[in-house]
Amino acid sequence: MSEPTSQPTASEKAAPVVDGGPDFSKGGGILPAIAQDAQTGEVLMLAFMNAESYAETLATGRAVYFSRSRNRLWRKGEESGNVQLIREIRIDCDSDAILLKVEQVGGAACHTGHRSCFYRRVTEQGLEVVGTPVFDPSQVYGKKSG
Amino acid sequence: MSEPTSQPTASEKAAPVVDGGPDFSKGGGILPAIAQDAQTGEVLMLAFMNAESYAETLATGRAVYFSRSRNRLWRKGEESGNVQLIREIRIDCDSDAILLKVEQVGGAACHTGHRSCFYRRVTEQGLEVVGTPVFDPSQVYGKKSG
Repeated sequence: MSEPTSQPTASEKAAPVVDGGPDFSKGGGILPAIAQDAQTGEVLMLAFMNAESYAETLATGRAVYFSRSRNRLWRKGEESGNVQLIREIRIDCDSDAILLKVEQVGGAACHTGHRSCFYRRVTEQGLEVVGTPVFDPSQVYGKKSG
Repeated sequence: MSEPTSQPTASEKAAPVVDGGPDFSKGGGILPAIAQDAQTGEVLMLAFMNAESYAETLATGRAVYFSRSRNRLWRKGEESGNVQLIREIRIDCDSDAILLKVEQVGGAACHTGHRSCFYRRVTEQGLEVVGTPVFDPSQVYGKKSG
């Protein structure tokens, strides 16, 4: 604040601050987290966070998830270099879902090389691939697929 | 198709169709589903779907979720009238997350009256409310809060 006053400013009135954050007591300690491109609004991926990954995300400014399949922290981009820089974090009304607005380094969030993991559209004939990959996964991940 | 030809068109080549849909054998039969405003790209809410709610969503063109707390189908807008008309459905790379691009009738997805359930931003001082409600929940839901 630029002025040492006890009166709330118009800005404060318009944007009340309330306490709290995600409620990790819900969802068995693991909550869904959506990553959205901060510039374009494109939904990039959905992953999960536990309290530790959320805390590290806040501390580092980079998206850190909890991998349910590997049962460990997943520092997004740890292998590919395609980290997600946090621009804003939103919490939903029930405090059990997280929205990350990110800058996706490398241009693609998906391990397939697509910008978004949601690159398949449902049609009456089945799933239709939308767009083309930004990178070749074999070049980014070598022999590993994850 | 307008032409009865066995040759694939340029459009078909550019957008290959693959089979399948969400894999409800994952996640204990319940998968996260993101609702995104089809026009603005705003992420409106995160809920869950089971196979039955997904099938009804496809059949009716309206978002139907599975309420984990009430353990039953949740036809979004069944009480408020604020249904979500499906414009497009995307499936993620692992087939275990669903993205609905919707037209939000009534202008607000959240039971608090906010356009998006993600109306709270994380700041160093706590959560900050962004924007103002579109409707008064007491007018829409009467004495009920859900």
